[in-house]
Amino acid sequence: MADVAAKERKILVAVDESEESSYALSWCIENILTGNSNDTLILLYSVPPRAVYSTLDGSGYLFSSDILATMERYSTGVAQCVMKKAKRACEALNGVKVETIVEHGDARDVICQAAEKLQVDMLVMGSHGYGVIKRAFLGSVSNHCAQNVKCPVLIVKKPKTDGRSK
Amino acid sequence: MADVAAKERKILVAVDESEESSYALSWCIENILTGNSNDTLILLYSVPPRAVYSTLDGSGYLFSSDILATMERYSTGVAQCVMKKAKRACEALNGVKVETIVEHGDARDVICQAAEKLQVDMLVMGSHGYGVIKRAFLGSVSNHCAQNVKCPVLIVKKPKTDGRSK
Repeated sequence: MADVAAKERKILVAVDESEESSYALSWCIENILTGNSNDTLILLYSVPPRAVYSTLDGSGYLFSSDILATMERYSTGVAQCVMKKAKRACEALNGVKVETIVEHGDARDVICQAAEKLQVDMLVMGSHGYGVIKRAFLGSVSNHCAQNVKCPVLIVKKPKTDGRSK
Repeated sequence: MADVAAKERKILVAVDESEESSYALSWCIENILTGNSNDTLILLYSVPPRAVYSTLDGSGYLFSSDILATMERYSTGVAQCVMKKAKRACEALNGVKVETIVEHGDARDVICQAAEKLQVDMLVMGSHGYGVIKRAFLGSVSNHCAQNVKCPVLIVKKPKTDGRSK
């Protein structure tokens, strides 16, 4: 058993500002990373691309460049905040290396490309993927990733508050 | 960390006769169950219902009752064989309780209902789910389960033989 536990694994966790994502990370820390100090946990946050905002009015010209710049600054701020919170959740992990990556782009592409490029052993994500606005336009990110990523994909749903929150 | 490791978890693994399923079980044993002797591993096999065979000719009368009975006996034989193989794969697990369940029915329903009824902490399955014939008729079982099961769902894909079989 010691040999198995000592195996080095790279685990990619897609994080965002949602409670689902926060729960997925916590669940992963408690259930997957326990006791294996040879793991590397990679936290990935994707900042929505301009195109997602621009499609809001159909013509692509709803927002001025000032507003777009403000939204991008806001997104970057959110990314920093999410990463800070996620890293704090990882503090209890003994010896696990934690890396963070912030990428700009469609969450579906960002996650699939990162999983491939980093040759991770596992991808963990919340069930609804990446943010409310994007979900409405792009459909389920987790569904897309489960179908397209080659490594094992763990989709974690935040339990409804019906007592199944173990 | 000791408290976390001592948590009792129920892990449901959907098994079938495919290599994908066998790989998913092995991956789960190596990556999820390692070192946690308080886990209960539940192996679930669903025997296809008659309806799946009957739909093969469109009218539902292609097979005589004798042939259907033979196919059911064959399915039961396959189930026993798969379970035997799966249990053998679990022998190396120190102290993990292993239970087996064989249910008749549509794999999608059988898995979702078992996950719910047994209040499992995690569902593990191969990416293509349950058998070649059924997949052609019913679509992706894993996709359905990932969307409908409340607990975390781990979808494991068997790597292509391109050297990523770590």
